Amino acid sequence: MIRVTRAYRVAASHRLHAPGLSAEQNRALYGKCNNPYGHGHNYRVEVSVKGPLDSSGRAIDPAALDRLVDETILRKFDHRNLNAEIPQFAEAVPTTENLGREVFRRLLEAWPPEWPVLEKVRIAETDRNIFEVSA
Amino acid sequence: MIRVTRAYRVAASHRLHAPGLSAEQNRALYGKCNNPYGHGHNYRVEVSVKGPLDSSGRAIDPAALDRLVDETILRKFDHRNLNAEIPQFAEAVPTTENLGREVFRRLLEAWPPEWPVLEKVRIAETDRNIFEVSA
Amino acid sequence: MIRVTRAYRVAASHRLHAPGLSAEQNRALYGKCNNPYGHGHNYRVEVSVKGPLDSSGRAIDPAALDRLVDETILRKFDHRNLNAEIPQFAEAVPTTENLGREVFRRLLEAWPPEWPVLEKVRIAETDRNIFEVSA
Amino acid sequence: MIRVTRAYRVAASHRLHAPGLSAEQNRALYGKCNNPYGHGHNYRVEVSVKGPLDSSGRAIDPAALDRLVDETILRKFDHRNLNAEIPQFAEAVPTTENLGREVFRRLLEAWPPEWPVLEKVRIAETDRNIFEVSA
Amino acid sequence: MIRVTRAYRVAASHRLHAPGLSAEQNRALYGKCNNPYGHGHNYRVEVSVKGPLDSSGRAIDPAALDRLVDETILRKFDHRNLNAEIPQFAEAVPTTENLGREVFRRLLEAWPPEWPVLEKVRIAETDRNIFEVSA
Amino acid sequence: MIRVTRAYRVAASHRLHAPGLSAEQNRALYGKCNNPYGHGHNYRVEVSVKGPLDSSGRAIDPAALDRLVDETILRKFDHRNLNAEIPQFAEAVPTTENLGREVFRRLLEAWPPEWPVLEKVRIAETDRNIFEVSA
Repeated sequence: MIRVTRAYRVAASHRLHAPGLSAEQNRALYGKCNNPYGHGHNYRVEVSVKGPLDSSGRAIDPAALDRLVDETILRKFDHRNLNAEIPQFAEAVPTTENLGREVFRRLLEAWPPEWPVLEKVRIAETDRNIFEVSA
Repeated sequence: MIRVTRAYRVAASHRLHAPGLSAEQNRALYGKCNNPYGHGHNYRVEVSVKGPLDSSGRAIDPAALDRLVDETILRKFDHRNLNAEIPQFAEAVPTTENLGREVFRRLLEAWPPEWPVLEKVRIAETDRNIFEVSA
Repeated sequence: MIRVTRAYRVAASHRLHAPGLSAEQNRALYGKCNNPYGHGHNYRVEVSVKGPLDSSGRAIDPAALDRLVDETILRKFDHRNLNAEIPQFAEAVPTTENLGREVFRRLLEAWPPEWPVLEKVRIAETDRNIFEVSA
Repeated sequence: MIRVTRAYRVAASHRLHAPGLSAEQNRALYGKCNNPYGHGHNYRVEVSVKGPLDSSGRAIDPAALDRLVDETILRKFDHRNLNAEIPQFAEAVPTTENLGREVFRRLLEAWPPEWPVLEKVRIAETDRNIFEVSA
Repeated sequence: MIRVTRAYRVAASHRLHAPGLSAEQNRALYGKCNNPYGHGHNYRVEVSVKGPLDSSGRAIDPAALDRLVDETILRKFDHRNLNAEIPQFAEAVPTTENLGREVFRRLLEAWPPEWPVLEKVRIAETDRNIFEVSA
Repeated sequence: MIRVTRAYRVAASHRLHAPGLSAEQNRALYGKCNNPYGHGHNYRVEVSVKGPLDSSGRAIDPAALDRLVDETILRKFDHRNLNAEIPQFAEAVPTTENLGREVFRRLLEAWPPEWPVLEKVRIAETDRNIFEVSA
C-alpha cells in the first residue's frame, strides 16, 4: 500500500461572517477576516490516495486524478469568490475548515468506485495555517 | 553599502477589469482574473533598502522599518479588497504591477529623508509570478 | 473531525552536552553540536489540534491558540539560549527531541480542558531535520 | 516515542516504460514520462524512524543514520539512471511508487535490529507529487 | 519600468562530458555528473522582462509569454534528455550555464520586437545551485 | 558572462550588544536580540560569481568553490558562537550586515586571482530577513 499525494493551487477570495450573529459578534469572532469587502489567499490543496500498485507500477493514474480534480474542484473554486460562487457557502461560513470539508465531499461524490481510497484532503491557507480532512 | 530586504505578507482580493473596455474585451484581456466576483492571493511583499552601516552595525533599524510598513502598507492592504478599499484602484486596474507601484509610492511618501535609500519593492503574487519596482 | 495546524518560529541557541559524560565522550556523541560556545537555529514549531467544527465553522479559535502559544512557548523560547534559560535543560540535553517534548508538555499543562485535543507538536530544526511528538 | 525524519537529495534520471506493453500502449499510459531518452528529477527522500529517547536525548544517532542512508541509498541512486543502473528496474518500472518501495526495502535490509523502527519513506518527485511507503 | 518574472518547471536528464577530453579527464572535471548513464533534475526556469505598463496595467500579457515559453522551451526541454534531444548539446556540454544560454538564445530568437525587453533567464538546477544569463 | 550562485548553510548563535553603550541603550536598540545569553539562526549563505564560460562549459569549478567556502567560511562559522569564536566580533557587533561583510572580506582575501569575479554575498538570517554585500 502506497500513499500518493498531488498538490494543486486555488486562488480565491472569501469573507468570514456567520449569518446568525450580529455585526459586532462577527467582528469579535473573525477579526480582520470579517472585513465586509473580503480578502483572499493562494490555497495549496493536496489530495492523498492510498492503495496497492497496479500493473503500471502506480497506485493511481495521475492524469486521471488531475482531470477529476480539475473538473470537480479547480474549475469551481480557482479564481472565485467562495461566498458568492459556491452555493454551500451561502449559509456555511467559508472557513478553510469548511472549504476542506466541501472539497473532500465533492471529490468523494465524483470518485470512481474502482479507484484507490481517497484518504485525505489537506489545504494550506498560508504556509503557517493548515487544515486536514480525513476519510 | 549593504542591501537589506525584509519580507511581509498581505492576503487580499482583487478583480482585473479595465473600466474603459467592454465586458467581452475585459474577459479576453484578463481571462479568469476578470471574474466579476473577484479572487485573491497571499502576496509576499519585499522591501529593499541600501545604505551604509550605522554605529549599531545595521543599515536600517528593522523595528522602525516594520512600523512604517505596518502603518502605510499592511494596515491598508492586508485582508482587504484592493478594488473596493484602495482609492487608487477605483480607476487603475489592481494588477500586481500597479500594486507594486502603489506600495512603492506610499512607502516613498512616508519615507524619512534621513533613512537609507528605498531601493526596490518586490511582490510575489504566487511563487511563480513576481513583480519588481525600483527607484 | 478536522486537524488544524499552525506554525510558529523560534530562533534559539543551544549546546548538546550530557553532564554525566566526559568531554571526549560528549565530542564523540554530539560532534560539532557539542561546541562549548553553542550554536543556533531557526526552529519551525507546528502545533496540531484535532476536533469537530464549532458554530463558527472552525475547530479552534486561531487567535486564542496564538495567545496560548505566545505565552507558554514563544516568550520563553524565542531569542533564548535553551541551556541557560530553560530550567528543564539544566539537566536534560536540549536536543530537538527533548525540546519537542518540553514544548508539548508545557502546551498540555496550559491547555484549556474544553479545547479540542492537542494532537501533535512538530519541530523542524532545519528543513532536513524534523521531530514529532504525539499525544 | 518520538518520530525523527531526515531529508536527503537524489538527482536521478528515469524512463517509464512497461516491457510487456506495446510502444503505443506505453505512450498512452505514461505520456511524456515514456520519452525513450528519459528525463530526470531532484528527488527529496525523507526517512522517518520512531522510537524512545536514549540516554543522549535522541531517538537515533543522526550521524549513524546518515552513514546508512549514504551507503545503501545515496551512493546507489544519486546522479544515476534508475533504469540502467538499478538492477530491480531492469524489470519493474521506475515509477516513484516503485522507487519508494525499493528505497524502503534496501533500508530495511540493512537496518540494525537494535535501531528504532523504520517507519516511513517519503519521496517527493517534485513539490507537487509525493509518495509514501510505510512499514 | 517594472520587472516581471514568471517561473516554469523543466524535468530533464543530462550528462556532463566534454568530447575533446579523455574518460579520465572527464571524470576528474565533472565528478559524478560524468556518470555515462546520465542523471536528472527539476530545473526551475525564471524568465524576466522589463518594460513600461501598457493600458491593461501590465508590462506583458502573461498568457502570451506563457505560450511563447511553452512553444520554444517547455515542449523542447521538459521531460527530455538534453544530450540526446537538444541539437546544440551534441557538441556543447549541457551544463546549466550552457542550458541557460541556450534557453536565452531561443527566447530571444522568437521574441516579438514589440514586446518589452527580455532581461534575464535564471535557472535553478537545485535550490542551492543557480545560474543567470542577462541580456 | 554568466552569474553562478551556490548556497550554503551556517547554524550559529550570536548576541547583538554594542560595547560602547549602556545596558539600557543596548536593550532599546536591539530588543530581544540583546538577550545576554544569545540566540541563534540557520543562516543561508549565497555566494555569487560572474564570469565567462571556460572550456568545460562552466563559469567556475563548483567543487573548487565549495572547497574554498568550506575552508574559509563553513569551518569557521558553522555551529559556532559568532561573538565568542570570530575575532572580528569581539568588537564589531555580529549583526547579519557585519556577518555579510566579514564573509565577503574572508572570501575575497582567499580568492584566487585567476577566478571569475566574486560579485555578491547574500545572507538570509530567516526567509524574511535578507542582507547583501556586493563588490
